[in-house]
Amino acid sequence: MNKPIGIFDSGIGGLTVAKAIKSALPNEQIIYFGDTKHLPYGDKSKDTLVNYSLQIVDFLISKGVKAIVIACNSASAMAFEEVKEYSKIPVYNVIDPIVDYIELHKDISSNVGLIATKATVNSKVYSSKIENCCVGVKTSSLATPLLVPMIEEGFHDDKISSTIISNYLGDKTLRGIDTLILGCTHYPLIENEIDNYYEGKVNILNSANIVAWKIKTLLTKSELLNKEECVGEDHFYVSDYTPSFEKTANIIFSDKINLEKVIL
Amino acid sequence: MNKPIGIFDSGIGGLTVAKAIKSALPNEQIIYFGDTKHLPYGDKSKDTLVNYSLQIVDFLISKGVKAIVIACNSASAMAFEEVKEYSKIPVYNVIDPIVDYIELHKDISSNVGLIATKATVNSKVYSSKIENCCVGVKTSSLATPLLVPMIEEGFHDDKISSTIISNYLGDKTLRGIDTLILGCTHYPLIENEIDNYYEGKVNILNSANIVAWKIKTLLTKSELLNKEECVGEDHFYVSDYTPSFEKTANIIFSDKINLEKVIL
Repeated sequence: MNKPIGIFDSGIGGLTVAKAIKSALPNEQIIYFGDTKHLPYGDKSKDTLVNYSLQIVDFLISKGVKAIVIACNSASAMAFEEVKEYSKIPVYNVIDPIVDYIELHKDISSNVGLIATKATVNSKVYSSKIENCCVGVKTSSLATPLLVPMIEEGFHDDKISSTIISNYLGDKTLRGIDTLILGCTHYPLIENEIDNYYEGKVNILNSANIVAWKIKTLLTKSELLNKEECVGEDHFYVSDYTPSFEKTANIIFSDKINLEKVIL
Repeated sequence: MNKPIGIFDSGIGGLTVAKAIKSALPNEQIIYFGDTKHLPYGDKSKDTLVNYSLQIVDFLISKGVKAIVIACNSASAMAFEEVKEYSKIPVYNVIDPIVDYIELHKDISSNVGLIATKATVNSKVYSSKIENCCVGVKTSSLATPLLVPMIEEGFHDDKISSTIISNYLGDKTLRGIDTLILGCTHYPLIENEIDNYYEGKVNILNSANIVAWKIKTLLTKSELLNKEECVGEDHFYVSDYTPSFEKTANIIFSDKINLEKVIL
């Protein structure tokens, strides 16, 4: 189906998901919306996040998308049901594919840690979904709110990132885990550092890749995939523009992106 | 004049200014507004900050305030002229009192550093105002965007705060300064750590205190001070409420505060 996929996030972290989708589905055109005017979503209330998400859904639908990916854990945790109810096209979140993955691999993932924003952790969405489907799997969650600004400010593979990462991962909450969910779309950018901290002994779930594979399967099943080469141009919209957003966007997407400002 | 003083900020950092004003002017009633729904202001554009600020001014005026303090450096840098033009009551920002202070003390402050958000640094407001009034005073500015989330997440006097602070203050931009402006209303909370880094050899300008003294002078001159004991209750409004905002607000104000949510 020759229509674009809509992807949205509070800011530019969701570009890790956009990049993984583009890589798994190179024929697909992408319409990305980063709500940079309202970021971060990680410490906002449910009402506010539902309100912002529905406005973005209207915008993406006006651009003719055939499906919507909520590429933000906070919005997936707080607003997915409302968005799904509201939208007439398929909506995917970044949480369910991770839960499905754990269900399939519960023989090696029986003690699962989650690092995420406060909104995602407080929503308890991951832990309740995993407990529902995977009897016997233990979950522990830790809010790690300094990681997003750290990554957005370009701190990685340095003393600041290693101090902050060690401090969080050394928290007693995560003691003894065999699997760690990166519960925020920014975190794949520090996956190597996290893997180094654990010396490869913990299975790290990078939501961007898992979500992209899952969406490929779902779009194939529902016959929504574009069968020809992508002809439409990708677009990356933001609700507030600063040069610093564009710089970070290029780092995350590992490619030149022009951000286009729109007012919703 | 028996009317409250209105104070606003992007979030709760401006409570350092509210606290200093309350301490310098105990007879005054305070109406505080923290725009937590839209925080942080430090990386938003000028248009957006002007738009938010004018809405807040309308709200504060509706509460009967006699004067407005923009207790946020980013909004002071980007939106002060527009707010002053728009408002019919006196408006004060947190930048001019610092510039006046440096003008009076330029014999000991000839090499002035500034740490602040990106919006404040990029606006060049401090450097151009200081260069205009204080011939011969050199200024250097460094954006230190990780400090606000660090403080809001409760990291201070620990390994994370000392690593981040040392990294920023060790930047070559600030080499040789004799004075450091804390150009963000959150930073007074880490003043001691910054002072320790410099071993007391750099004069640190805490904007909250300087602004409070200046406002006392200005309100006295314009005969706007309340001459009797304060009878009205202080109010602390926010545009989005989470328990974590309230927790941080109590830490900053060093007193129990009830945040009241309002929709503008």
